[in-house]
Amino acid sequence: MSDPVLATLLDDRAGFVARLAELVACRSVSTDPAYAEGMAAARAWWRGRLAALGFRDVEEIGVGGHPAVTARWHGAGHDAPTLLVYGHYDVQPPDPIEAWASPPFELTARNGRLHARGVSDDKGPSLLALEVLGAFLATEGRLPVNVTVLLEGEEEIGSRTMAALLDAHRHRFAADAVLSADGARWRADLPTMTIGTRGNMALEITLRTAAKDLHSGRYGGVAPNALHAMVRLLATLHDEDGTIVVDGFTDGVPPATQGERAALAAIPYDVAAHDAAIGIAPSGRSTAEFLERLWLKPTLDVNGLWGGYTGAGGKTVIPAEAHAKLSMRLVPGQVPAKVADALAAHLRRHCPKGATLTIEATRDGTVATLLEGDHPLLVAAEDALEATTGMRPLRVRMGATLPLTDIVSRVLGIGTVMFSFATADEDFHAPNENWRESAIEEGFAAWVALLRALEGKTRGDFAGFRRG
Amino acid sequence: MSDPVLATLLDDRAGFVARLAELVACRSVSTDPAYAEGMAAARAWWRGRLAALGFRDVEEIGVGGHPAVTARWHGAGHDAPTLLVYGHYDVQPPDPIEAWASPPFELTARNGRLHARGVSDDKGPSLLALEVLGAFLATEGRLPVNVTVLLEGEEEIGSRTMAALLDAHRHRFAADAVLSADGARWRADLPTMTIGTRGNMALEITLRTAAKDLHSGRYGGVAPNALHAMVRLLATLHDEDGTIVVDGFTDGVPPATQGERAALAAIPYDVAAHDAAIGIAPSGRSTAEFLERLWLKPTLDVNGLWGGYTGAGGKTVIPAEAHAKLSMRLVPGQVPAKVADALAAHLRRHCPKGATLTIEATRDGTVATLLEGDHPLLVAAEDALEATTGMRPLRVRMGATLPLTDIVSRVLGIGTVMFSFATADEDFHAPNENWRESAIEEGFAAWVALLRALEGKTRGDFAGFRRG
Repeated sequence: MSDPVLATLLDDRAGFVARLAELVACRSVSTDPAYAEGMAAARAWWRGRLAALGFRDVEEIGVGGHPAVTARWHGAGHDAPTLLVYGHYDVQPPDPIEAWASPPFELTARNGRLHARGVSDDKGPSLLALEVLGAFLATEGRLPVNVTVLLEGEEEIGSRTMAALLDAHRHRFAADAVLSADGARWRADLPTMTIGTRGNMALEITLRTAAKDLHSGRYGGVAPNALHAMVRLLATLHDEDGTIVVDGFTDGVPPATQGERAALAAIPYDVAAHDAAIGIAPSGRSTAEFLERLWLKPTLDVNGLWGGYTGAGGKTVIPAEAHAKLSMRLVPGQVPAKVADALAAHLRRHCPKGATLTIEATRDGTVATLLEGDHPLLVAAEDALEATTGMRPLRVRMGATLPLTDIVSRVLGIGTVMFSFATADEDFHAPNENWRESAIEEGFAAWVALLRALEGKTRGDFAGFRRG
Repeated sequence: MSDPVLATLLDDRAGFVARLAELVACRSVSTDPAYAEGMAAARAWWRGRLAALGFRDVEEIGVGGHPAVTARWHGAGHDAPTLLVYGHYDVQPPDPIEAWASPPFELTARNGRLHARGVSDDKGPSLLALEVLGAFLATEGRLPVNVTVLLEGEEEIGSRTMAALLDAHRHRFAADAVLSADGARWRADLPTMTIGTRGNMALEITLRTAAKDLHSGRYGGVAPNALHAMVRLLATLHDEDGTIVVDGFTDGVPPATQGERAALAAIPYDVAAHDAAIGIAPSGRSTAEFLERLWLKPTLDVNGLWGGYTGAGGKTVIPAEAHAKLSMRLVPGQVPAKVADALAAHLRRHCPKGATLTIEATRDGTVATLLEGDHPLLVAAEDALEATTGMRPLRVRMGATLPLTDIVSRVLGIGTVMFSFATADEDFHAPNENWRESAIEEGFAAWVALLRALEGKTRGDFAGFRRG
């Protein structure tokens, strides 16, 4: 009882891989102007492919940065929901190129995986999604929902102009939810749905204790040392166990409930193996404690610290200045600006005497996101994964931050469901990036099942999940 | 009632300045091999001048580094003491050259001061000393004491081979005391004798918390941060007032006596002006407290600290490694290796869990020195200054470390008296280095008076002040 759309996709599996090879051959490195031609080539490739797949209004659209490629098929009717199907066509730089076992822009099969820069992040998963949509259009002449396609060109450089782009073209990108083909699955052995992300916020601070660096012989004992002030100040941020002890930092964050803790404890996870893999001292934490710290609790990390003489040998200097970069991961309930204010107040309150503190916010901050448990796109995605894998997917969160999720929530007022067939162990951003060949069949089946699960959904079903 | 030697010197004042101009024209920068020719030129110049001044056995002598220039006049007899008269012919690099108001290797008079690289440190003061000795030989055919001349070529690069040189030629350099023409006077308005220096010791430490840097989103909350461990560790070294709280650190250091404190309080010094000059918060310290901290107490300074991302913008990294350079200034009673052991034990005891500490000693360390109050060369120098300035000089110490003083104490077992006519405000090591023209007359008179004060001294007078 094979699905006719899935059958069409599987019949053309070789064609899919051939097209993916063309796409990864486009050297679309967004961070480096030297790759501008590769960026343009990837856009041109996508424009051609989207048109061939049956999408309308294919065009490039931008607000100063690398343009996005957009397209739509809005033939499902006014009552059907509209999904913004997201992917990105830009990739990380291939450096260090000598570390690659095969040329980074040539798709190479090896050990059951396809290798190339961007194959997992995000060219394979995004092409997979759009090929499935195209197969529906080719086979059945329609999709169960309206679709607007958004292929970003700046995901690898922090989605710099995404908020402005969506804001400038609100009408064009209006949708009921985002369905993202980006965002790696947590692990290969278990179907999971990521329902939450942590937000972030960053500060840079400087302490100054004298007009200039001073000689430790001529001034040692009678001049303050900016590094002494800095270590004393930063040591006040956490207690001995690493718990953040900044007044107001966790205001608005409810403690984890018994139910949440029980759900975390039910997730199979080997904490000791995790600790060993990254070479840290065994934490002895339970899975629930580990996942609560990673997903449900905020963090405050010193990302960089410097001052004084840092070259070879010694220099008997009393540093007049010390610098630190701090960043936070935030959880639902925390407002980035308020958390930054609480931290700034703490730093001012604890600034050692004799030192002058300067605080600079280096980012606007991103809020944490948490998808409603009954969000219709989430439930449909879970149903599709259960239908194709035989297991109800676990709901998980991620400790990291996804600018896209925050941006579409802020600008368009809608939630994001990540439905990616990349996996976290595929060396994206590193040499020898790769993508499981098995993800192709799994992804085809799951995306087809998802579209089937959306059949009959209406805009009204999404009404309670839109803001503004 | 003019001294005939002093009269001779003053008659030839213009000749002295002309010779100093020749000497500063030798570009004797020891740290940079590009100046090797200038180093050789300075040695050749000194050899010629020492011979002309009446010294014997003039030669260059070295043990692998820049050779020293040495000479002697040992005609005062076996019972007379032998003084090792010290100076150095090397200078600091002139960079940044564009900051000089006149060419750095051309002696230029301006506003009552002579300007050139090395004019104050140490070519003017050392030429002054040797010209006085030569004037004695020319005028009277003898000196009141035996003299061995030692002009070092590596003072500006840490006297790298000085200990080995003295050790390899103990017999040649055997003496009853060192009389140094180096070492700037504390201040211009007051005759002072520096009787003590602080020693030093340095360590470098590394803390490691994971096999590699980790992403703060993927690991924040479940991986330790090396910078957190470092600030927590270094914050244990001092209390809130900056007092060192390391067990055993000050073992063997007696508290200052009432008499010492009273002597410090008697020194006129404007602490508030000092604090303002270097742009630190007003300390509110009394002169006695200020000078006790600078001269009689050890210090422990973090000279450099670094870890994580220190470039532009932010990077959400959890650093796996943090580094710090620490150095100490030591006072009499402290043994560098023992102090380093006490510090290492403290660091190990307070190393936060989850972090691995590595300690590397980057130096052998230098002990503090303190000249005996009744040292016959010190008393003679004080008598000479009193005779020429009308004021009994104040005994002061310095917070910094002089490798020479420690080296001759260790290798030759003798004390050092600094009798310099450079002053601390003459921009040595900086652009526009200068030397007060008035130092020539003052120095001539004081050195003549010192030689007169040494008349009749015997080796026996120094017997109690030699070690080994």
